[in-house]
Amino acid sequence: MKIAILPGDGIGPEIVAQAVKVLNALDERFELETAPVGGAGYEAAGHPLPEATLALAKAADAVLFGAVGDWKYDTLDRPLRPEQAILGLRKNLGLFANLRPAILYPELAGASTLKPEVVSGLDILIIRELTGDIYFGQPRGVRECPDGPFKGQREGFDTMRYAEGEIRRIAHVAFQAAQKRGKRLTSVDKANVLETFQFWKDIVTDVHKEYPDVALDHMYVDNAAMQLVRAPKKFDVIVTGNMFGDILSDAAAMLTGSIGMLPSASLDANNKGLYEPSHGSAPDIAGKGIANPLATILSAAMMLRYSLGRAEQADRIENAVKAVLAQGLRTPDIFEEGTTKVGTEQMGDAVVAALA
Amino acid sequence: MKIAILPGDGIGPEIVAQAVKVLNALDERFELETAPVGGAGYEAAGHPLPEATLALAKAADAVLFGAVGDWKYDTLDRPLRPEQAILGLRKNLGLFANLRPAILYPELAGASTLKPEVVSGLDILIIRELTGDIYFGQPRGVRECPDGPFKGQREGFDTMRYAEGEIRRIAHVAFQAAQKRGKRLTSVDKANVLETFQFWKDIVTDVHKEYPDVALDHMYVDNAAMQLVRAPKKFDVIVTGNMFGDILSDAAAMLTGSIGMLPSASLDANNKGLYEPSHGSAPDIAGKGIANPLATILSAAMMLRYSLGRAEQADRIENAVKAVLAQGLRTPDIFEEGTTKVGTEQMGDAVVAALA
Ligand SMILES: CC(C)[C@H](C(=O)O)[C@@H](O)C(=O)O
Ligand SMILES: CC(C)[C@H](C(=O)O)[C@@H](O)C(=O)O
Repeated sequence: MKIAILPGDGIGPEIVAQAVKVLNALDERFELETAPVGGAGYEAAGHPLPEATLALAKAADAVLFGAVGDWKYDTLDRPLRPEQAILGLRKNLGLFANLRPAILYPELAGASTLKPEVVSGLDILIIRELTGDIYFGQPRGVRECPDGPFKGQREGFDTMRYAEGEIRRIAHVAFQAAQKRGKRLTSVDKANVLETFQFWKDIVTDVHKEYPDVALDHMYVDNAAMQLVRAPKKFDVIVTGNMFGDILSDAAAMLTGSIGMLPSASLDANNKGLYEPSHGSAPDIAGKGIANPLATILSAAMMLRYSLGRAEQADRIENAVKAVLAQGLRTPDIFEEGTTKVGTEQMGDAVVAALA
Repeated sequence: MKIAILPGDGIGPEIVAQAVKVLNALDERFELETAPVGGAGYEAAGHPLPEATLALAKAADAVLFGAVGDWKYDTLDRPLRPEQAILGLRKNLGLFANLRPAILYPELAGASTLKPEVVSGLDILIIRELTGDIYFGQPRGVRECPDGPFKGQREGFDTMRYAEGEIRRIAHVAFQAAQKRGKRLTSVDKANVLETFQFWKDIVTDVHKEYPDVALDHMYVDNAAMQLVRAPKKFDVIVTGNMFGDILSDAAAMLTGSIGMLPSASLDANNKGLYEPSHGSAPDIAGKGIANPLATILSAAMMLRYSLGRAEQADRIENAVKAVLAQGLRTPDIFEEGTTKVGTEQMGDAVVAALA
């Protein structure tokens, strides 16, 4: 089993190092190969997703990804900016299913900006389609406005689109995930305005026929954004498109107040996947040894479960993370009075110790 | 001064009746003319936006709008559904600037699902562009997928677009609003992915040169959704496109926990506008006399201020609303132990009494 390790920028290398430490502490050894990505890819090879890095990711059974981005790359042309590596990996590896759990660990309930009764015990799963929608639709660009009151002026434009097969495959992933959980799926759309999402709604409704044991409801994206704030625990599994999913999955993560705890998986049609923390590269705290490595460690657990068929090892890691939380260990982002503040390395070491 | 009164569906007629009562209690009399819209328009004339209703709205100096929509119209073809009336009014009247205040009244701090320290004193203004973006962009529809792995299948598609002049005019509205408030403007985009919003960002940056006294920052929409949950009070004025604005303005409204209190204005280039509560038609409580009329009454106040040049009358109404809250009067949606529960009419009467 070969794992591509792509640490990236900012706190990426520090947090990925802890996840690697945890992987190396398991009974079974995996072949780990590291390559630069994002700003680090640009520095090494003049491109955020160097060819060798993409080739490694393609050849590996799974990819463990840190985070990319740093202010110093803000002035680069868009195709050279670090985040293009993420888009390139998703597209080239066909990673169409993004699983974003939003879980609030009981010990961290105080970290949320929401009242404890609204969020304690939160456990929802957002499934975001990741290779379609307005992210990759053509044509796009800046052109002369062809008609209407602004005719002749410059205009920026993009194309939103979803093909039937694209919607079907993400719907199957979502219904199957719901079957393994609370058997409730909310499909989020904007069918009252967008043709793309009226089509989305129709196809999801059709796929539902194959999953009669799952309760399906449809919700407009503006309402979903409201319900996430009002009563997030009412959701079980949410499925939505790439653009709405980008917004809602981040909002849902922030409800927990502890985004440093949240892993994510991006899967292809064969459960090969890329695993990364839900948070960003946080260049402001990079190199200080204070970043929370738990989201990355939990991403490694998801990798063992979904791509490597090692559910038991995944359980071990997840239990070890729960154990260190129960021990009261906290990195600064989740620190509260009465707990023990630790750094990135100490947290990684504590998880390794708790594996035993 | 002529005001078009469009009560609409669900609780629309009840809440608009209270706002009309308040308008009629002012020293100055306005000419009020009522017309059906939404489901009521469909019942009356076979279309959610009957020609006579549109003509009235065009001829009037301002429009006071209730809410539209009811489940019984869900099976109609999309062009006949109630919400098409809203889109039609925006487009036909050129209402490109949507002002959505999210204010948390101190008396209602407990109604929020967020911790009091996070939201008490919240006072942000979201300015949403309302006639461009993916809402009206052409082409759109369902077609045969022209290329890529899904070639030949059906696909739903839409066009996102913003012309330079469209961005400039909403940016001017936003900078001028910021000048009258805390002098801070956040432009929300997705410039890292979308050509439309890289263009948006460039134009907003250019318009900024004319407003050196306003501090401008740019934020990605996913991050904005997170920051609204994490630290909403850090915002002053937010400006964004139609689609992102739809999502963020509703999320921001829900932060207050009292969406029944929030008015909105949709303005054209000459400050003619349509005014409506931020909440919907709530068909589940229609006719029960329990809906909160304050958002609609406050919308009438905004109308007096922005479209009718009657700032003093607007102040009077806003102060009267504050007074009834201070008196402890609450409709069921904002009721808490220790306050006095009242119905829709009683609340309207109390505002009229407090005007004196
Ligand atoms: C960096 C950016 C292109 C990316 C996205 O919008 O998908 C990020 O926000 C994410 O959610 O992974
Ligand atoms: C009803 C719908 C078309 C509308 C919109 O999306 O603009 C509504 O959500 C709003 O925000 O006024």
